[in-house]
Amino acid sequence: MSKPYVLGIDMGGTNTVFGIVDARGNVIATSSIKTGKHDKFEDYLDELHASVTQMLEANDATGKIHGIGVGAPNANYYTGNIEHAPNLPWKGILPMAEMMKDKFGIPVVITNDANAAALGEMTYGAARGLRNFVMITLGTGVGSGIVINGQLVYGHDGFAGELGHTIMRRNNGRLCGCGRTGCLEAYCSATGVARTAREFLELRNDESRLRDIPIDSITSKDVYDAAVLGDKLANEIFEYTGNILGEAFADFTVFSSPEAIILFGGLAKSGELLMRPLRESMEKNMMGVFKGKVKILLSELKEADAAVLGASALGWEAGSKTVAPQA
Amino acid sequence: MSKPYVLGIDMGGTNTVFGIVDARGNVIATSSIKTGKHDKFEDYLDELHASVTQMLEANDATGKIHGIGVGAPNANYYTGNIEHAPNLPWKGILPMAEMMKDKFGIPVVITNDANAAALGEMTYGAARGLRNFVMITLGTGVGSGIVINGQLVYGHDGFAGELGHTIMRRNNGRLCGCGRTGCLEAYCSATGVARTAREFLELRNDESRLRDIPIDSITSKDVYDAAVLGDKLANEIFEYTGNILGEAFADFTVFSSPEAIILFGGLAKSGELLMRPLRESMEKNMMGVFKGKVKILLSELKEADAAVLGASALGWEAGSKTVAPQA
Repeated sequence: MSKPYVLGIDMGGTNTVFGIVDARGNVIATSSIKTGKHDKFEDYLDELHASVTQMLEANDATGKIHGIGVGAPNANYYTGNIEHAPNLPWKGILPMAEMMKDKFGIPVVITNDANAAALGEMTYGAARGLRNFVMITLGTGVGSGIVINGQLVYGHDGFAGELGHTIMRRNNGRLCGCGRTGCLEAYCSATGVARTAREFLELRNDESRLRDIPIDSITSKDVYDAAVLGDKLANEIFEYTGNILGEAFADFTVFSSPEAIILFGGLAKSGELLMRPLRESMEKNMMGVFKGKVKILLSELKEADAAVLGASALGWEAGSKTVAPQA
Repeated sequence: MSKPYVLGIDMGGTNTVFGIVDARGNVIATSSIKTGKHDKFEDYLDELHASVTQMLEANDATGKIHGIGVGAPNANYYTGNIEHAPNLPWKGILPMAEMMKDKFGIPVVITNDANAAALGEMTYGAARGLRNFVMITLGTGVGSGIVINGQLVYGHDGFAGELGHTIMRRNNGRLCGCGRTGCLEAYCSATGVARTAREFLELRNDESRLRDIPIDSITSKDVYDAAVLGDKLANEIFEYTGNILGEAFADFTVFSSPEAIILFGGLAKSGELLMRPLRESMEKNMMGVFKGKVKILLSELKEADAAVLGASALGWEAGSKTVAPQA
């Protein structure tokens, strides 16, 4: 075909990574720019355009891009806008899809980063062939992308799939970045794990390797490293985290009865430290009719490529997008 | 058209109601038989067949039925089976769709009663034109039917949409009929409201009209009647119920971002007694991005017709059903 590639753009708070991807999911080339360098969104787009153009020329891909897919925080698939993203330097509503299309002359589709990850997994990863699954990204926050009947769930307004903000603790719940308390994200993100570590260390007196680290600088990686070495308190932090995740997954199941829940992100690489308590808790909390039915899978995409691949999967949709919001 | 009608069958634990419905949702005729009269499922089907045949003949509808839709407890859309329904006299797995099709010579599609209600509402009621909504039935239990992108959500195994079994109270939660504790259904069904009444009356000492009723025979209707007369304790029971429902609806919204949540069933007729605390709680608990966006609507179907209409809406699908489970 004359346009055998798509461009995937992963716009994060720190870096914007982009790559040329072919129909088989091979990442032909990638590059990146700093997201936060420019005060004006227009200047950011100028640099992105220049950098992408250079990459296309260097890879003989100019004029061969079928569409552009963008994964970005608070990106709305329906409107093409990035709306009030707390982690980006530009406030308010950014008409990302329209401005990029004008600049690049190529159709653009955008969605939030977790939805992009779900699409990537469905197209190239652990969810190939699955028509009903939930993608959970365990990073700085807890993101989600929900697929039902083979389609991403965008909901009425384009913002569906905020499972990290399901309330897991209704009394004395931890303050969440969303302004409410008790959200899943406040417990089971990488930062949530670090908060659990601080809580445990302050409330308890037992020995732990984690006491050698200044309490305010403890990360989920520190907890992982200590747990692997057999540290009891660190292991209990993973029990605690897995337990809440399992409770949440049992509730997600009564909603959409997914075939699998797929984990992605730094914390998902904790292996059995997290997976054993998670599976046990999920099955213990599961409604009878769903017991033993829901698989927990790990992402099969290389982390370095996953975001770009996920966004690129949207690029194939671009130009043929017909979905509109139901306002 | 030569087959201008569908047959809707609502199979409840006590009665099986069925009716002939035209394409505009007019109920041409209805009739019913007792569900529990026969020890053998085959005998029940024989009586149902005889009774339906009679109704068709009396209404000049023989040979004019496009398809049969059945709403039944624990009915699985994918398999056509009723699986382990606790409220029916026949145990195990009943191949309902296949046996009915053999007997009637007409295509049959089955689904659970709450899904049928959602379909009815989408086809003929408050959800006309909505592509993303959640139907909540507040009856003896709390049932749900979820519509996303205009499609009912059946999930991987056909059992999705059990929102009545979302865990709302993780500590000291009430025992639920499903064997777990803390489910929405244990609080916000008609029986849940009666349980709240008994709890409040036992734990508190303040005056209430409800104290004139033997405590074990109090129903949600008694609570309603007392609340309407200004009884303070009865009003607080509605506050309590609406508060938990609102918490649940806020969590449902982060999942699928519905345009509306539609209430059906006896308790939904409590008017502002329930609706005011429900709306207040939902908005208070709602994640910022969804605040003020989700409508709470009441069913627009006449209760007597709703179940039959809902099931009948499935009848139009019968014969053209192509969905299969993703085993």
